Amino acid sequence: MEDPDPDGISDRDRALFEAGIKLGALYHQFTGTPVSTETASKLEAAMEKSISLQPWVNLVRVRIDREKLRINENQFRYCELSGEMLDVELVVTYENVEVHARIRYDEEMKYPLMRIEKVSTI
Amino acid sequence: MEDPDPDGISDRDRALFEAGIKLGALYHQFTGTPVSTETASKLEAAMEKSISLQPWVNLVRVRIDREKLRINENQFRYCELSGEMLDVELVVTYENVEVHARIRYDEEMKYPLMRIEKVSTI
Amino acid sequence: MEDPDPDGISDRDRALFEAGIKLGALYHQFTGTPVSTETASKLEAAMEKSISLQPWVNLVRVRIDREKLRINENQFRYCELSGEMLDVELVVTYENVEVHARIRYDEEMKYPLMRIEKVSTI
Amino acid sequence: MEDPDPDGISDRDRALFEAGIKLGALYHQFTGTPVSTETASKLEAAMEKSISLQPWVNLVRVRIDREKLRINENQFRYCELSGEMLDVELVVTYENVEVHARIRYDEEMKYPLMRIEKVSTI
Repeated sequence: MEDPDPDGISDRDRALFEAGIKLGALYHQFTGTPVSTETASKLEAAMEKSISLQPWVNLVRVRIDREKLRINENQFRYCELSGEMLDVELVVTYENVEVHARIRYDEEMKYPLMRIEKVSTI
Repeated sequence: MEDPDPDGISDRDRALFEAGIKLGALYHQFTGTPVSTETASKLEAAMEKSISLQPWVNLVRVRIDREKLRINENQFRYCELSGEMLDVELVVTYENVEVHARIRYDEEMKYPLMRIEKVSTI
Repeated sequence: MEDPDPDGISDRDRALFEAGIKLGALYHQFTGTPVSTETASKLEAAMEKSISLQPWVNLVRVRIDREKLRINENQFRYCELSGEMLDVELVVTYENVEVHARIRYDEEMKYPLMRIEKVSTI
Repeated sequence: MEDPDPDGISDRDRALFEAGIKLGALYHQFTGTPVSTETASKLEAAMEKSISLQPWVNLVRVRIDREKLRINENQFRYCELSGEMLDVELVVTYENVEVHARIRYDEEMKYPLMRIEKVSTI
């Protein structure tokens, strides 16, 4: 297999690296935030706006699982945002490479899996 | 000076303790968040909603200094939320005690000072 | 009941407010940190050192529950620091008032309860 | 230019994505932490241990700039960890691909630049 850019780093490499940065940042900035079924949509909007500011972000869509919020709500009727509640779709565009990536909780692994969904040249 | 409640902790004590908790939480949860003049109002709303969920919070008002945002914006036209940009007013009501507290940057001290503004019995 | 300081804020008030700030800060700064039974002691030390820097902190002792770490470890053998694993003792001294406060998970409430344990004049 | 893996995602892609995740996570988990010249080494150690737990991390080296700590210390002799103080080297190994990545503050850009330093097949 030939390396498409033997002497260095390709646009594809950078696009993937940038997509990873954004998901790691979003996750560790916002988990722990107090949230409830009533405030979830405002928090989703703020998370999307915030990560959209970072370079090469084309789209961020955050969904917080309302059912999991309900299950986790304490006696004060809120809980902390955690990985198991998060579904995040991200599109990063670096030069002509577009990366679709996602955070989604894997119930079997007990892990908020971050994965690459698609890489394409535009 | 006589202690009003020599054997224990008064409602006033608890109200002040709770006010401190909320300001410390807000500060360390949200500083570092990417923000710009265009997204500041969404972030303010999300911060207010989030901290309002915590027990005994009566009111939270968050203002992010737009001028400081402009000064700190990097070449990608955003910056990270930091203490020098924050003005937060908080009212905690515990039983019949109301505490007004605030975060405001002290330019001389170079410090995001958290202080008690007023304690009253309602 | 007479207010011990009708015109303002007492040292006791400030000591309690400061104790709250520290616990809120510690909690929201460090929850979410990747941790395992092997790294827990290093994280405890860093948390203690960090919060000890803040004004009027006399002592911080952080214990992360090793049994809960084991239960929560994912297939990569680590988990995220969360409120249910934390036991934090804090002593704040403001002027001649000493406040002992604590974070400890309340299993029944499903809540990382922050409470005042003792207030004394020294 | 031929895509080395037209139907999917290569190990190189995944290694770069994972490297990005780790840097984004480290940055947003730990910035904001109270730190001083006296506690910096303990914090560096805790950050390294913590990120080393995440999958495919081979090495993390964190250096906090002591000179910048001194400049930023407030009257209580500490400051908050920020991007301009950080130098982080990371090696991620995914299958037979090794990625060297770094966080380093770019003084001209006023930006904590995260970049890929080297990608190699081992």
